[in-house]
Amino acid sequence: MSDLSALRDRIDQLDAILVHTLAERFRQTARVGALKAAEGLPPRDADRESAQRARIDSLAKDAGLDPEFARKIHGLIVDQVKENHRKISGDQ
Amino acid sequence: MSDLSALRDRIDQLDAILVHTLAERFRQTARVGALKAAEGLPPRDADRESAQRARIDSLAKDAGLDPEFARKIHGLIVDQVKENHRKISGDQ
Repeated sequence: MSDLSALRDRIDQLDAILVHTLAERFRQTARVGALKAAEGLPPRDADRESAQRARIDSLAKDAGLDPEFARKIHGLIVDQVKENHRKISGDQ
Repeated sequence: MSDLSALRDRIDQLDAILVHTLAERFRQTARVGALKAAEGLPPRDADRESAQRARIDSLAKDAGLDPEFARKIHGLIVDQVKENHRKISGDQ
């Protein structure tokens, strides 16, 4: 049972990294949103989004993560970023 | 534009951390699955799952991440772990 317990501790550590990295990512996208609003830039940038998708795909392949799963997670993050931007701009 | 570019670089770095952390997490859960199978333990453990959900919730609050969003991401990961276990055991 101690092998299982050690693996679970490791998974818990990885979950903590995931949660803190996601929190930090939303802080950075909030800054991007604020900067774009201040500079009068459009909230969406199709070229950036397409480059990001290609990058996630390539990162996933390198890391040995199912690219389809990586796209699913990334999609959920992007939806949340859009939702946060809507909340900030009051455009709900 | 250089502020925006710096923020995007930072977001790209965070995405790389997320992808590699997720890949490592699936490697560890594959080891858990193999260990449970070898020891004849049941694949699911309701107490562990409930403790994990509570931990994610608490981590999210500490990190300033929307707990609902954290649960969504965690749910997607857990579904994928189950899917991987089904593939490994051939029980599709």
